[in-house]
Amino acid sequence: MEAHILSDGQIRRTGVLDEIRLGHAAGRTMWVELGERSAEAEDFVQRTFGIHPLVIEDIFGERSAPKIDPYGDYIYVVIHGLRRVDDPTRADLGIMDVVIGKTFVLTQHREGPTNEKLRARLAASPNLLQQGPAWVAHAFIDLVVDRFLPFMDLVRARADDLEHQVVHHRDATDQRDLLPDLFALKRSIQALGRIAHHERDILRSLSRDAFPEIPIDARPYFRDVFDHFARVAEQAETYRDVVQNAIDAYLSVQANRMNETVKRLTLISTVMLPLTFVASFYGMNFKHMSELYWEHGELYVVGVMVVVAISVWTWFKVKRWA
Amino acid sequence: MEAHILSDGQIRRTGVLDEIRLGHAAGRTMWVELGERSAEAEDFVQRTFGIHPLVIEDIFGERSAPKIDPYGDYIYVVIHGLRRVDDPTRADLGIMDVVIGKTFVLTQHREGPTNEKLRARLAASPNLLQQGPAWVAHAFIDLVVDRFLPFMDLVRARADDLEHQVVHHRDATDQRDLLPDLFALKRSIQALGRIAHHERDILRSLSRDAFPEIPIDARPYFRDVFDHFARVAEQAETYRDVVQNAIDAYLSVQANRMNETVKRLTLISTVMLPLTFVASFYGMNFKHMSELYWEHGELYVVGVMVVVAISVWTWFKVKRWA
Amino acid sequence: MEAHILSDGQIRRTGVLDEIRLGHAAGRTMWVELGERSAEAEDFVQRTFGIHPLVIEDIFGERSAPKIDPYGDYIYVVIHGLRRVDDPTRADLGIMDVVIGKTFVLTQHREGPTNEKLRARLAASPNLLQQGPAWVAHAFIDLVVDRFLPFMDLVRARADDLEHQVVHHRDATDQRDLLPDLFALKRSIQALGRIAHHERDILRSLSRDAFPEIPIDARPYFRDVFDHFARVAEQAETYRDVVQNAIDAYLSVQANRMNETVKRLTLISTVMLPLTFVASFYGMNFKHMSELYWEHGELYVVGVMVVVAISVWTWFKVKRWA
Amino acid sequence: MEAHILSDGQIRRTGVLDEIRLGHAAGRTMWVELGERSAEAEDFVQRTFGIHPLVIEDIFGERSAPKIDPYGDYIYVVIHGLRRVDDPTRADLGIMDVVIGKTFVLTQHREGPTNEKLRARLAASPNLLQQGPAWVAHAFIDLVVDRFLPFMDLVRARADDLEHQVVHHRDATDQRDLLPDLFALKRSIQALGRIAHHERDILRSLSRDAFPEIPIDARPYFRDVFDHFARVAEQAETYRDVVQNAIDAYLSVQANRMNETVKRLTLISTVMLPLTFVASFYGMNFKHMSELYWEHGELYVVGVMVVVAISVWTWFKVKRWA
Amino acid sequence: MEAHILSDGQIRRTGVLDEIRLGHAAGRTMWVELGERSAEAEDFVQRTFGIHPLVIEDIFGERSAPKIDPYGDYIYVVIHGLRRVDDPTRADLGIMDVVIGKTFVLTQHREGPTNEKLRARLAASPNLLQQGPAWVAHAFIDLVVDRFLPFMDLVRARADDLEHQVVHHRDATDQRDLLPDLFALKRSIQALGRIAHHERDILRSLSRDAFPEIPIDARPYFRDVFDHFARVAEQAETYRDVVQNAIDAYLSVQANRMNETVKRLTLISTVMLPLTFVASFYGMNFKHMSELYWEHGELYVVGVMVVVAISVWTWFKVKRWA
Repeated sequence: MEAHILSDGQIRRTGVLDEIRLGHAAGRTMWVELGERSAEAEDFVQRTFGIHPLVIEDIFGERSAPKIDPYGDYIYVVIHGLRRVDDPTRADLGIMDVVIGKTFVLTQHREGPTNEKLRARLAASPNLLQQGPAWVAHAFIDLVVDRFLPFMDLVRARADDLEHQVVHHRDATDQRDLLPDLFALKRSIQALGRIAHHERDILRSLSRDAFPEIPIDARPYFRDVFDHFARVAEQAETYRDVVQNAIDAYLSVQANRMNETVKRLTLISTVMLPLTFVASFYGMNFKHMSELYWEHGELYVVGVMVVVAISVWTWFKVKRWA
Repeated sequence: MEAHILSDGQIRRTGVLDEIRLGHAAGRTMWVELGERSAEAEDFVQRTFGIHPLVIEDIFGERSAPKIDPYGDYIYVVIHGLRRVDDPTRADLGIMDVVIGKTFVLTQHREGPTNEKLRARLAASPNLLQQGPAWVAHAFIDLVVDRFLPFMDLVRARADDLEHQVVHHRDATDQRDLLPDLFALKRSIQALGRIAHHERDILRSLSRDAFPEIPIDARPYFRDVFDHFARVAEQAETYRDVVQNAIDAYLSVQANRMNETVKRLTLISTVMLPLTFVASFYGMNFKHMSELYWEHGELYVVGVMVVVAISVWTWFKVKRWA
Repeated sequence: MEAHILSDGQIRRTGVLDEIRLGHAAGRTMWVELGERSAEAEDFVQRTFGIHPLVIEDIFGERSAPKIDPYGDYIYVVIHGLRRVDDPTRADLGIMDVVIGKTFVLTQHREGPTNEKLRARLAASPNLLQQGPAWVAHAFIDLVVDRFLPFMDLVRARADDLEHQVVHHRDATDQRDLLPDLFALKRSIQALGRIAHHERDILRSLSRDAFPEIPIDARPYFRDVFDHFARVAEQAETYRDVVQNAIDAYLSVQANRMNETVKRLTLISTVMLPLTFVASFYGMNFKHMSELYWEHGELYVVGVMVVVAISVWTWFKVKRWA
Repeated sequence: MEAHILSDGQIRRTGVLDEIRLGHAAGRTMWVELGERSAEAEDFVQRTFGIHPLVIEDIFGERSAPKIDPYGDYIYVVIHGLRRVDDPTRADLGIMDVVIGKTFVLTQHREGPTNEKLRARLAASPNLLQQGPAWVAHAFIDLVVDRFLPFMDLVRARADDLEHQVVHHRDATDQRDLLPDLFALKRSIQALGRIAHHERDILRSLSRDAFPEIPIDARPYFRDVFDHFARVAEQAETYRDVVQNAIDAYLSVQANRMNETVKRLTLISTVMLPLTFVASFYGMNFKHMSELYWEHGELYVVGVMVVVAISVWTWFKVKRWA
Repeated sequence: MEAHILSDGQIRRTGVLDEIRLGHAAGRTMWVELGERSAEAEDFVQRTFGIHPLVIEDIFGERSAPKIDPYGDYIYVVIHGLRRVDDPTRADLGIMDVVIGKTFVLTQHREGPTNEKLRARLAASPNLLQQGPAWVAHAFIDLVVDRFLPFMDLVRARADDLEHQVVHHRDATDQRDLLPDLFALKRSIQALGRIAHHERDILRSLSRDAFPEIPIDARPYFRDVFDHFARVAEQAETYRDVVQNAIDAYLSVQANRMNETVKRLTLISTVMLPLTFVASFYGMNFKHMSELYWEHGELYVVGVMVVVAISVWTWFKVKRWA
């Protein structure tokens, strides 16, 4: 557990529980990173900040869906953030817990970068903590959503790329390899879209409902984060349509290719089978087949074959079958 | 019927109806397991606790969907729980009835384990009954939802496994056996998702609506169960998408494999039919076919055949058909 | 038109219009079966009970969707009931009209059984009419919904049976005959589900909205019917999913079977075409084919054929194509 | 422009603008058919009845979706009606504009029949105009919806017919011709359903919202039209399901027929290819094939062929492939 | 940055920041085109008009979804407009920002035409600015929506054309080329429909919610734009159905064509394979085949072949397979 306590315009960073307790008792504004679970930590949080045991259980222990739970003296918010933003087909989500009190913000998550960045931001501008806990919470959540937008850009690029490959390279034989990517991307978008949808609702609540923990002039900032999540949710819907269209097109292209293959088979069979029949016919060993003794018998049969082949070919062309 | 009556800080367990009646008349807090249907039991419950005949009919007799019915003096809740949590493709649901009064909780279900566990919990902490009937009801419902989460873990494992098999082992011939599993899992998820959705709404009602039977400090605990059901409902939606994607992918893989088979058929026919035709041609019995008398006639025809075969093969490769 | 008028604790059954008019004027509680349309009947109903002409038009004439229309002095309810409950693939729905006034219930439908049963029930317990018109209306609607539940049981049995046949008897050749049943069942479920959904809303209105015609102690009974319709609507959704899954599985099984057929065709062609080519090759009439003069030429060619056949077979097995 | 002005219990029909203006100034109730667009007409309507320029623009000029716009002194309603009711696959919709004021109704549409009928109705019962503008508006809208119901009957008949053809005449070869009909019907139903849905909402508003232009005793009549639209919307949903099921069944039947065709091809190939191979085998020109010299060689080879044919046939029957 | 300031009934066009500032301070109504991002511009807008930094950030910097954000003294609206209206398969959307204050309208977008037109309109009728900022904002948004309707006309023409080609030219071989168009059109419609849906909601808010920036007599004009967007959203839904139907029909046509091809293959194989077998049979070299020595052996075998061919053909016709 590590606390950033504002005292006399300075931010003091400490891990000593007694200091945190005294700072809180003295009404000092602070941001506490909760860190690893321990009986001591749980007990400390419950006693010092008066957090409900169920909330503590949620923070440290269980996997929870995104939600906002207003308690009397604080708001408990769970949001999910992206762990990695390098592969659009893998929406790897991590859980972040934020408790917004009147003089404190407690955060808990296992993703290093966000905490690092927030610490850096706090170090750079101590007045963030001076403005109040809601602003720290906003900065924290803002860092989370900031990772969503580049991820959606990757998703868009990949979705467009896959769609383009499916629709415009219909004749390529290696389309089959697009399948796992298409489904992985769809799944990733579905997961992200659902999360963004929930988190949009949470941010809407934070920016509209009159929580005493969120001062009025902080609300536009939460509405800004709401806009971001709304945009992500919107994009997720759009890209899911794109991927679904690509999958549908893929299936149609498959059927088309099958059609082409069967057409070729039909054409070759329709041409070759009659020719082979004619050849077999004159391969019969009947003693009395006068054609076999014609001087130009071979020419004659080749003529027959050419006529048959041209007829079949023309028939197919006229019927527009090939 | 078996009652756990709180008297002087002690829990008394009894099956004697008169004791229950007297205990209730004396305002003692109690939990009553209703047990098997009997005219006597029905009559007793109606008279002693003032339960509406329709509720008694529902409890003992009919199959009911999950619901919450507030009556004047008590709340009647029906929820469905999982009977078994070993097979993710079989969501085997059992019905549980809970009547929450001001001084009593009546429960009825045919699943042994939950009752056993609740009895054990009560034996371990008699203060559960001291806190009030709402807490006992919460413990009872909490035991129900506790079985949902491991079941969803099984579902997730199975869904991921099936999806992986479909998408990554596309060439295996035994994919066909995945079909019943995929549909059974989908059905199981659909059933569970629908139930979780309803029960989430019931728990939302219990945690938000101002029922006099649910004290204010018990509400966070019902909200906690609400969170669990919300999570189950959420997971059900996610996993249903995963399974649906796997089914769609399965169909696409089927079509792909068909394509491959037809391609092989086309290739072999396109190569062999012309060759057979050439052989049949020179099997004709025309007297005047000078080729037949060439000294290297066989070499010549083999040459023709090789040229035909290579041409067809090249044509297919150039056209990217094989 | 036939009325059941409560006079001095006795139920009088009469078809004489004047008696009905006098009974109504005297404030007697009554249940009137409206019977066939006639100008006289329409006029009588409008004058005696003050029913709006549009309602009378609806009752006697038109086909109407389920609805509830509260007028000042009475509630007009239209619900649809099942005419037959023997064939789950045919949801044969009949229309029933109920007008609930303060001292009267008017009913109209062409389904004999329900009326018969209600008459029997009334004969058995005259106090039903004594309790008030709402109770008679409840009994009437309850008889309607009572037919839904056994129908849904038939639907469930059939859906499970069809699903089982599709998924577990995938190799049977007579699957094709399942198609009309699957679609008929789906259609039946869709029709019933939509109706149950509407009627659930109607019953919710009857049990919750404060209609003066529905006394407070009758509301739990309407809520009970609401529960039944909710259950039917719920089941309809579940069974529709089951049938849809079965249809999807059916299509997948079809595709699979096609795959198998084409595989067999490919295998036989791939084995036989080369063999036939070899035989045709040595059927050529070239004078100079030394093989033809070998003493063990036949053995040699059989050897070649066996090698070709085994090669093809092995190739297919190695590639897992057959 | 043609007005029907009520003066002293008589309906006067006039096209003279000054008369209309004076009649309106004198507070006379009137119905005005607006007729063709002209600068004069627009100007007259705006000045005389105080209609907002945007409404006038909508009435005369633009294509508008169904809507209800309450202005201060009048309600502007746009509904779409069917132009023709002869072909269920063509929902040919025309736009009708109605402005309901306190003493006037303005209507505009290009469909002759409705106006004709309304004129006839007005001529038959002048008290329609006496009752007030809302009643005229109701009669007008009622005439529109009256055309929907026979159209839906045609749709139902066609949908049932197509479904029956698809499901029960699965072996007919001319199913392909059902395709354009199925899709045209679906499109027609979708268009109508969407319109009916909107117009139901408009009528709900007219019958429930407390518009001063709609007297209380006229509301049941608008609710009656609402019921009609609700019924049409309901039917559209049902029939769309029927048609969608028919399309799904059609695709399944197609796949089935393909299966059958491929099975036949496989059977004929599997029987004929080995037989041809056997014949080709004994067509080889090896000098040393002792079978060729057997006295009953032909019988022997026929025997072999019969055995091969029967084996293949039996194999297919045992494996249930044909 | 360029401002159109109303001073003494004249519109003054200026780019000098100080003039704008003085004009705003003097309470002059003005329309300001914000132009390119620059630190100076941002600072100026924030200081002069009191715009929130987050709004300025949104206007100049980020890609935002359509939205309406009421701030205390102004409303911030983001809508998306079409950049080009020439190709219905490409919904190329650009972002437009509008800030509506009490005495000013700020607009920002990178699409030349709209600004040009608005400038022209303003030059033509200076009283637009005199009426107030809401009217200028309305004119601006109206110009945006004006481009949607011709685009939807193109979409409709293309959708109808594609549907017609798919359904009525089922035998044409070049259907494959319709695929990219169908999917591109669907995607375009989906994107536009979603945008129109959002913008409809924004315009509904502008026309209904009591914003002090929108005078009451301007509301019908915003409602008119709302109607336009509602119409576009409605059309998008309709056309999406049309395109989806066309895609479904396309897939069905594909399957049908495949069926036809396979039928031809089956027919030719079923006719030719037995004939070839018969020919091969009499090509066998058995010494003792008396038929071979018949004088009319060839006639006999041709007779057999004709019988076989006719039998197969008749069998196919009787079974309705071809």
